[in-house]
Amino acid sequence: MIVVMKAGASQEEIKDVIRKAESLGVQTHPIYGENRTVVALVGDLTRVSREIFNAMDGVADTMRIQEPYKLASRTARPDNTVIEVGTVKIGGPDVVIMAGPCSVEGRDQIIEHAHAVKEAGAHILRGGAYKPRSSPYSFQGLGVKGLEYLAEAREITGLPVITEVMTVEALPGVVEYADILQIGARNMQNYGLLQAVGKTNRPVMLKRGLSGTIEELLMCAEYIASNGNYNVMLCERGIRTYETATRNTFDLNAVPVLKQRSHLPVVADPSHGTGYREYVPAMSRAAVAAGADALILEVHPDPDNAVSDGRQSLDMKDFAQLVVSLRRIAEAVDRKVAPPVGAVSPVAA
Amino acid sequence: MIVVMKAGASQEEIKDVIRKAESLGVQTHPIYGENRTVVALVGDLTRVSREIFNAMDGVADTMRIQEPYKLASRTARPDNTVIEVGTVKIGGPDVVIMAGPCSVEGRDQIIEHAHAVKEAGAHILRGGAYKPRSSPYSFQGLGVKGLEYLAEAREITGLPVITEVMTVEALPGVVEYADILQIGARNMQNYGLLQAVGKTNRPVMLKRGLSGTIEELLMCAEYIASNGNYNVMLCERGIRTYETATRNTFDLNAVPVLKQRSHLPVVADPSHGTGYREYVPAMSRAAVAAGADALILEVHPDPDNAVSDGRQSLDMKDFAQLVVSLRRIAEAVDRKVAPPVGAVSPVAA
Amino acid sequence: MIVVMKAGASQEEIKDVIRKAESLGVQTHPIYGENRTVVALVGDLTRVSREIFNAMDGVADTMRIQEPYKLASRTARPDNTVIEVGTVKIGGPDVVIMAGPCSVEGRDQIIEHAHAVKEAGAHILRGGAYKPRSSPYSFQGLGVKGLEYLAEAREITGLPVITEVMTVEALPGVVEYADILQIGARNMQNYGLLQAVGKTNRPVMLKRGLSGTIEELLMCAEYIASNGNYNVMLCERGIRTYETATRNTFDLNAVPVLKQRSHLPVVADPSHGTGYREYVPAMSRAAVAAGADALILEVHPDPDNAVSDGRQSLDMKDFAQLVVSLRRIAEAVDRKVAPPVGAVSPVAA
Amino acid sequence: MIVVMKAGASQEEIKDVIRKAESLGVQTHPIYGENRTVVALVGDLTRVSREIFNAMDGVADTMRIQEPYKLASRTARPDNTVIEVGTVKIGGPDVVIMAGPCSVEGRDQIIEHAHAVKEAGAHILRGGAYKPRSSPYSFQGLGVKGLEYLAEAREITGLPVITEVMTVEALPGVVEYADILQIGARNMQNYGLLQAVGKTNRPVMLKRGLSGTIEELLMCAEYIASNGNYNVMLCERGIRTYETATRNTFDLNAVPVLKQRSHLPVVADPSHGTGYREYVPAMSRAAVAAGADALILEVHPDPDNAVSDGRQSLDMKDFAQLVVSLRRIAEAVDRKVAPPVGAVSPVAA
Repeated sequence: MIVVMKAGASQEEIKDVIRKAESLGVQTHPIYGENRTVVALVGDLTRVSREIFNAMDGVADTMRIQEPYKLASRTARPDNTVIEVGTVKIGGPDVVIMAGPCSVEGRDQIIEHAHAVKEAGAHILRGGAYKPRSSPYSFQGLGVKGLEYLAEAREITGLPVITEVMTVEALPGVVEYADILQIGARNMQNYGLLQAVGKTNRPVMLKRGLSGTIEELLMCAEYIASNGNYNVMLCERGIRTYETATRNTFDLNAVPVLKQRSHLPVVADPSHGTGYREYVPAMSRAAVAAGADALILEVHPDPDNAVSDGRQSLDMKDFAQLVVSLRRIAEAVDRKVAPPVGAVSPVAA
Repeated sequence: MIVVMKAGASQEEIKDVIRKAESLGVQTHPIYGENRTVVALVGDLTRVSREIFNAMDGVADTMRIQEPYKLASRTARPDNTVIEVGTVKIGGPDVVIMAGPCSVEGRDQIIEHAHAVKEAGAHILRGGAYKPRSSPYSFQGLGVKGLEYLAEAREITGLPVITEVMTVEALPGVVEYADILQIGARNMQNYGLLQAVGKTNRPVMLKRGLSGTIEELLMCAEYIASNGNYNVMLCERGIRTYETATRNTFDLNAVPVLKQRSHLPVVADPSHGTGYREYVPAMSRAAVAAGADALILEVHPDPDNAVSDGRQSLDMKDFAQLVVSLRRIAEAVDRKVAPPVGAVSPVAA
Repeated sequence: MIVVMKAGASQEEIKDVIRKAESLGVQTHPIYGENRTVVALVGDLTRVSREIFNAMDGVADTMRIQEPYKLASRTARPDNTVIEVGTVKIGGPDVVIMAGPCSVEGRDQIIEHAHAVKEAGAHILRGGAYKPRSSPYSFQGLGVKGLEYLAEAREITGLPVITEVMTVEALPGVVEYADILQIGARNMQNYGLLQAVGKTNRPVMLKRGLSGTIEELLMCAEYIASNGNYNVMLCERGIRTYETATRNTFDLNAVPVLKQRSHLPVVADPSHGTGYREYVPAMSRAAVAAGADALILEVHPDPDNAVSDGRQSLDMKDFAQLVVSLRRIAEAVDRKVAPPVGAVSPVAA
Repeated sequence: MIVVMKAGASQEEIKDVIRKAESLGVQTHPIYGENRTVVALVGDLTRVSREIFNAMDGVADTMRIQEPYKLASRTARPDNTVIEVGTVKIGGPDVVIMAGPCSVEGRDQIIEHAHAVKEAGAHILRGGAYKPRSSPYSFQGLGVKGLEYLAEAREITGLPVITEVMTVEALPGVVEYADILQIGARNMQNYGLLQAVGKTNRPVMLKRGLSGTIEELLMCAEYIASNGNYNVMLCERGIRTYETATRNTFDLNAVPVLKQRSHLPVVADPSHGTGYREYVPAMSRAAVAAGADALILEVHPDPDNAVSDGRQSLDMKDFAQLVVSLRRIAEAVDRKVAPPVGAVSPVAA
């Protein structure tokens, strides 16, 4: 860490900084410049926060040199983490496709959708039983019933299931039925929930918040990992900017940045990222070309009648065509789309 | 709501939109333009979501004409809501000042701080017992012990207490001890938590999320109100933008916008809003000049040794001076800073 | 256009809106809702600005239904515009690669670079003779000398040349030497400059401003086209957001959005878009996968000693490898990278 | 400057950085940490750009310790710059009010407006003769005719005049007629224009760009000052963020930040900052409470019929009331609104 003193900082203020740093067990290297002094701190600074120094008299600013996360960092673990969900491996050489409707709308619907997305090439079934909605008057999901339907769809098709968990209270139920726990964008920094999923042994897909930085996303993964659950996937799903031509600004740059900084698998969500189905195929191809390990896509056989997010849902035909083109892109970057999932769910088996 | 059809939408697609709207019980008015058709929908649209139409073939876009919130809207209730916390009234003619340290650090500390901020002119004591921290390795607050210390400080000084509740599990404890429940910025859209505080009878201060729009803030207030708790204050605390000269971009414009759209009291938090104590006095004065009903300020007798957020904490002397200048500003806008709180807590009494 | 009246707007205010609209030669369709009235305007609204109505008493808001640009719109011209620069065609089936150093640093340097990028597969040589720099104390470019060196490099290698024009005064010189005029991000809304390049017959590459919306980019292209120059390329080069892990947020979503809305060729600039050379290959591949017609890349044989933007410049070896991988991506989306440029410049010839 | 090496940087790479720094005439202080080395650079670094080091092998990042601007910095000049425009002093103890219509619409109109705003308490007349418009089909201003009308209005009322200059070509004309040259937000980084106004002896009001940082605004002021013109005012007029409840996000925090970092006068523009006339009075009061030296306001006797920006224009009655309330706010912060301007223009005299 570098502590930058103000232009007119006194000798006493500089000494206070040095004393404080030494009291925290780190070495100090003051450097006296023409107008300003900086104090470099050397040692294990993971638990030393910048704000301790920021608050001191005479300090203008502080800068962190090392990453504030450890378990999520590629420095700590150079090899890719590969997360196994049944026979599906996420983070390895194969590109994985998660697909399904925004919401579980009923038993027959989700089973029908599961068959359809599987046939078109999906490896994992997505579907929301609990839905975070900006209006209290909107459909909030089927809850436990939805989880049961998802589990039934898995047993029939063999597709593992990913679904969102919104509250600590609902967690035991979701853990019972789901193969992957999804933490939604609005809950990226819901630390109570992160700690709770960190104490389960289910893989977690953590979505970047609408205004989450890449570093914050990694810190939130650290919350989960530091509670014992290392099977975390990082999901880019669009950030909030001034641009309104897309629903969010799908920040595909996060893919190479995350792959460089972390060993954790990276998932891209162009459905939420762009918000319009007509942009999803182009941005899905772009995501695989940029190095994403998996895609999560909203697909609905009849988007016009979806109870939520129909605007960003592909229909089955467009989804099937997209999977074909993704195979070609994956090959162009020396990967391949993962092979089809077998008939019997390896989780349920 | 206005449904805008694509340039080349077919007659059949237009009819589908009309049929769908009529099936939802709203009237339709198609308008045929040179290149495009729009369909205006008239009736009670609170429960009709835009996405139903967005997803339909031939639809280019939809636009909502009416506010999607009701209970929080000034249209529904023209008079200001005044929330009484003991003898303190928030949302009325007097400007209220909430002050205290970022974190409760210990029993003696919080009692000493409570005395000091009261003497300087504060009406409500703030202090965090549960702290949302971006690093899992940082100090997370004293928890229930912190709540007990806060309550003791209230009993001694008579100042009502505001403190953050981060999880549904912690809610019963916080309700037991606190006079006002604070929902932090990271939890603005933690709907489970909003519903839970909506079922209590404690006043709530809801902070705007880092990327929350003003409309979303009002929708989140609606979540609380629609569960039965109408005593909600809206707090502007800075949004995330590209500018780094301040920690956040304190969006003071939210004050007149919220006062226009809603009857709920508006609180401004220039400490988090700017992140640097040297900008807090100017922006506190600006907030009162802009019409804020209350301020919430971080104050610490020894900011250099605060366990958190010292950089944005005023010391006692600066805080006392600020209160003096706020009295002048309040008078310049035909208000006044609320009178001092009596010796015995009206809540504890 | 839709004019939304305020909740309590009077009959007289509604009539004023109708009269105003009719005085502008457009038809009106008032729709009376439960709480609000809206007035739909139908006719040629290109020259009718929203602000005329926004300013009127009783008006809450206005919404535009049609695009405010015409010449740049795909509605007006469904077929792709293909811009020919010598034998290179931009906007057709082949993907074009523009490459070169950030700045022209000297005669020998730019000729050497031109040979090197041509050999590695580039079709057009980029290089700045006039440099927009945030500090007045930084290197500002070689000016006319730089233009002469660029022209010499073109004559030797046959590569057409793209270079930035920053001022109307410098325009005649740049037109004399350059094959494509670049308008930089800071000048996207420098309307005097747009009008001036619109009066030349040189192709123009218009970069999106740091906070430019996609619609504003198209409106700025309209400024050029409405002055008579239809050969405009649109360039995505990163927007300003809160994220600091990349220098800008390269908004790749703009590629499919622009291709949908406009017939003009779309160029992607991952060098400025990301700001770090290690992310450029992944995002270049992503850009081609997303449908970009061309890439513009900063390449320098010795990035460590580049006078500007070395951090985002690829070295020759990495650039050559990237071109190989781009050929594979282009094929995966049924395109190909354009064939090499012949030895003699078709422009100079 | 601090050069942060990558985790695995080699000894040779570190030495290269040291050699490069020494070749630029600055001292080096390498500090060897557990995982990383940083090299601190000490000396005059104004002309040493970060990118030189960013581009080198083994370098992870660089951080600047000192401000990159000198002439605009309060460190260089602790006392406030006071700019005299006739008898009006901007940047001194008195708060100055600039007001007038968005556009000069005609001779009689601007003379009538000038009388009206003067009577209501304005000190300087604003009005656009050249208008930057996002559509090429919108009204672009009266040009030289508009300048002549402004000058006539000044001679009749005695009010000095501020008007925008958009191009270098128009500059001689604007200098001939205007007392203050306005550089608009879209041209903040139009360096050719900044250099040109820097060579005149007219005071300049430089508006912050829609995505300009506070540091960039100061660097652009440096462009003007380094060309010899020290009479620069800095104007906050709203930045672009995701929030759409206001037209821009008026970043009032810029006022105390700029006053701290720079000695130059600070002007606030709540008309453009918020975009809606109903928020202008509150935010004008807030701006004065926050320490602004001047306000620039759009005022129009008949906003409904303004040719541009009527939505954000106050009418005369509201403006006159606002001035009254601003006097009270100014007094509450120990300033006062400047006294009325005498009958004869000190510039024209």
